[in-house]
Amino acid sequence: MDAFVKELRVRFNEVDHAGIVFYPRFFDWFHMAFEDFFEAHTEAPYHVWTSERRVGWPAVHIETDLRSPVRYGDAFRVAMTFPKVGRTSFVARYDVFVGERHCARAEITVVTTNLDTLTPLELPATVRAALERFPAS
Amino acid sequence: MDAFVKELRVRFNEVDHAGIVFYPRFFDWFHMAFEDFFEAHTEAPYHVWTSERRVGWPAVHIETDLRSPVRYGDAFRVAMTFPKVGRTSFVARYDVFVGERHCARAEITVVTTNLDTLTPLELPATVRAALERFPAS
Amino acid sequence: MDAFVKELRVRFNEVDHAGIVFYPRFFDWFHMAFEDFFEAHTEAPYHVWTSERRVGWPAVHIETDLRSPVRYGDAFRVAMTFPKVGRTSFVARYDVFVGERHCARAEITVVTTNLDTLTPLELPATVRAALERFPAS
Amino acid sequence: MDAFVKELRVRFNEVDHAGIVFYPRFFDWFHMAFEDFFEAHTEAPYHVWTSERRVGWPAVHIETDLRSPVRYGDAFRVAMTFPKVGRTSFVARYDVFVGERHCARAEITVVTTNLDTLTPLELPATVRAALERFPAS
Repeated sequence: MDAFVKELRVRFNEVDHAGIVFYPRFFDWFHMAFEDFFEAHTEAPYHVWTSERRVGWPAVHIETDLRSPVRYGDAFRVAMTFPKVGRTSFVARYDVFVGERHCARAEITVVTTNLDTLTPLELPATVRAALERFPAS
Repeated sequence: MDAFVKELRVRFNEVDHAGIVFYPRFFDWFHMAFEDFFEAHTEAPYHVWTSERRVGWPAVHIETDLRSPVRYGDAFRVAMTFPKVGRTSFVARYDVFVGERHCARAEITVVTTNLDTLTPLELPATVRAALERFPAS
Repeated sequence: MDAFVKELRVRFNEVDHAGIVFYPRFFDWFHMAFEDFFEAHTEAPYHVWTSERRVGWPAVHIETDLRSPVRYGDAFRVAMTFPKVGRTSFVARYDVFVGERHCARAEITVVTTNLDTLTPLELPATVRAALERFPAS
Repeated sequence: MDAFVKELRVRFNEVDHAGIVFYPRFFDWFHMAFEDFFEAHTEAPYHVWTSERRVGWPAVHIETDLRSPVRYGDAFRVAMTFPKVGRTSFVARYDVFVGERHCARAEITVVTTNLDTLTPLELPATVRAALERFPAS
């Protein structure tokens, strides 16, 4: 699978006192991967898109399976692919692995949005091209 | 609709610099409502379930629709109901309203779990009774 | 002591897996108390000050003693007083109690700031009057 | 200055809607640097110290100057040195730089602690040696 991969390690403040990841933290990681994808594969880092161009990609739909616990200290990777790319929206898929163990999958639909008016925009061609480099298998 | 309701206000550190809620924060709120539900409607607060009894309810599946933006300073309420109650697992539904505006719905499936062994447990009868007081309409 | 008091309970995601509060969370609580103070005792909630009037109070100096551990499930109160009020800046003192146990004290110096230019402003008279209602003993 | 350096970038969810860093996030970063220091310079990663050996370093005193704003998208580095090393406690200094701009300095006193009994322990010799490699100038 050709994916955009971000490597991370579970931090002290990301686990509950059972030592497993508090599930909202997964979404923080997915957003970090999302930002890094924009920096690596589009013509501008995410903060330029949002702060200067006033274009962002708020989430409108989320489906997530948490299959296997991720624990404090685990090194893991988030593999990002794009199963659907539409006119204004796209779906980002995030697969979380600890070694070979597939711990979680999320699919998050986001919509290209004018951040001043909060109205949808057409997906910029350069972003579309970047997404199409990482189709879901 | 007879729901367990938690009232909150969007905090300074929960919005992005567009002033709308950063979506992982919704899940933090849902967990706060979940904890408060246990405190209000079961025989022990959530920390007693998890710290002393070593029983918890990790999430295994999440579906969420984010329909309308929630902004910094908005007062909102989270209405919690339980559309499915199984032998070990249940689904908690969270509806987020700003006034009459229905901003988000999440359905989160959790499994009763022994926090030492991370194996499933039968749902305690007192918790089942509490959940059944708030069926989804 | 006449203080502005906020009552809270330690949340699942605020403790480390030793079950004691991860210290950066204290500062999240202090900011919540700060926002609630503005809502309760000035003519506008904090989000109106920051979003509409573009006036905020960034922190410039912090001193904190963490004396006694705060644990998951603890109910605690944050008592807020103002030991120094200057022309543009003031010091907010936060004392954290679990029952009679004094767990932490922080003194945080903030400066009235124009959020567009990030330059200091004179403390508004209505805010000064609010602060002076809660002098430190 | 010979310091342990961690390079980071300000994330979407770390700024307020004025686009400057919400100050409690600095302490999250300092803890990340602290964990990474243990991984790089002691014989075990921090999670092994805390989860397996049940030894940790809770903060007991914090002094921080926030001198210059850090903004969304800024790349910054945290330079870590140790101005005081005692029998059970030590002081970690964190200097935050955006390019050559010195944005913040924090000194955080931590105490070697048995995480089961929450009582102080003598600083392990290997940790002491690691700290002494990065004295403050």
